[in-house]
Amino acid sequence: RRSSDLSEQPAYFQLFFTIDKIKAMAINHPEWETEQPFKAVLDNNMHELMQQGEKALLKLVLVSHTGNTQEEYKKEVQDWIKTAKHPTKNIAYDKLVYQPMLELLQYLRENDFKTYIVSGGGVDFMRAFVSEIYGIPSEQIIGTRIKTEFDYNNANPVIKRLPEFEFIDDKEGKPLNIQKIIGKKPVFSAGNSDGDLQMMQYAASNKYKSFMLYVHHTDSIREWAYDRNSHIGRFDKGLDQANKDGWTVIDMAKDWKVVFPYEM
Amino acid sequence: RRSSDLSEQPAYFQLFFTIDKIKAMAINHPEWETEQPFKAVLDNNMHELMQQGEKALLKLVLVSHTGNTQEEYKKEVQDWIKTAKHPTKNIAYDKLVYQPMLELLQYLRENDFKTYIVSGGGVDFMRAFVSEIYGIPSEQIIGTRIKTEFDYNNANPVIKRLPEFEFIDDKEGKPLNIQKIIGKKPVFSAGNSDGDLQMMQYAASNKYKSFMLYVHHTDSIREWAYDRNSHIGRFDKGLDQANKDGWTVIDMAKDWKVVFPYEM
Repeated sequence: RRSSDLSEQPAYFQLFFTIDKIKAMAINHPEWETEQPFKAVLDNNMHELMQQGEKALLKLVLVSHTGNTQEEYKKEVQDWIKTAKHPTKNIAYDKLVYQPMLELLQYLRENDFKTYIVSGGGVDFMRAFVSEIYGIPSEQIIGTRIKTEFDYNNANPVIKRLPEFEFIDDKEGKPLNIQKIIGKKPVFSAGNSDGDLQMMQYAASNKYKSFMLYVHHTDSIREWAYDRNSHIGRFDKGLDQANKDGWTVIDMAKDWKVVFPYEM
Repeated sequence: RRSSDLSEQPAYFQLFFTIDKIKAMAINHPEWETEQPFKAVLDNNMHELMQQGEKALLKLVLVSHTGNTQEEYKKEVQDWIKTAKHPTKNIAYDKLVYQPMLELLQYLRENDFKTYIVSGGGVDFMRAFVSEIYGIPSEQIIGTRIKTEFDYNNANPVIKRLPEFEFIDDKEGKPLNIQKIIGKKPVFSAGNSDGDLQMMQYAASNKYKSFMLYVHHTDSIREWAYDRNSHIGRFDKGLDQANKDGWTVIDMAKDWKVVFPYEM
């Protein structure tokens, strides 16, 4: 069996979950009305929020994703995904998957590849809902993880989520995490941003033939168009190396007949 | 598919690898002749070494298992396992597996369990040689991991092993690591020491029926006999809880017709 790594949209959904959760928590945090980055969230000021950079976003994630048990957290995410809709597309998040990606995953599995998600998003966030959508079991989902604590809790053990990152699954973190968790070099790697570049480089160095696939978000009508200057999902160095080394780059606007399954 | 976790002997082999490696490295470290815990290793003084406790052992592991790349390290372990023999049994390490454990793993897999190794030993140490012995692929081997670093190295990427632990897969670490890496609670958990107790407690709390299996090393003739007072592999609190909660405890001397495959 070969190993295939795919990284996609869940990381972005997580930002919207974070925003909704911060808003719900704000009742108990009147101080957030004047304190950044919380103020930007409560003001619905996405521009201001993005200006505050990655550190501010990670702070919001820690505040909104920890302080509970794994089971409580999982239920929160599952409850959210059932009702929440993307703010501009007005479509449920679990419908915002790429049809070509579903087809690629199926094709790879039919050819005995073992498919993984390797995303900058939180591993427990993704596990709460993506297995069914992508046909990928929890043990094949790799992502950013936080520190946790075991509490025997009078014979009802719980794992508590602590407000500290253990490992950020982005950039260099991706090949490192693949080595830690899978222990094999990918032969097929797909991504869409500079956060995937080191994973691509790692796959490209496989002694077996390997395939590096970048999805370029070029479709401002059906999806979004962004690359070198985007705050989230920047695709700049990755695009340069893909062009230089002859990796496959998908031009979403030109190459994909269908983007989302609901178009069919 | 259900998930089964087994933890066994490789951790102990790793101590012998560590000792051999420290001895080989000593040529470049004359200061070790008078510096503990190195002196105890060079003097072949196992009693003194054990007296120095876990911290000293972990220091020896860091010194002997890092400072190289993953591929160099893997080759070192593989070269060692091919030639090294257990100091008292005079048998190659890859022959020192438990026949009943091999049979149990096979039985579980035939019944659609997904079998994992979850050991206090180093994950990369185990991956270098145990897959073939136990029929368990690298991505189903969970263990202690060190910090690593990605180096693009002029288009020949390597992962460098740094002299710092990232996560100790022992005691509370076992259920935490199972949650992090597998994302499911075990329904079958086997172990042989207090280091497995929290994993057992975690499995015992499964909402599905679960099986907790402890192997008690009671056979001083064919293997070793130790439990409550052992420096390595202490089995004390685990034995108490197994008795109290009715978990299955194997008495190796009485219950196993065959211990090692070479007896057959």
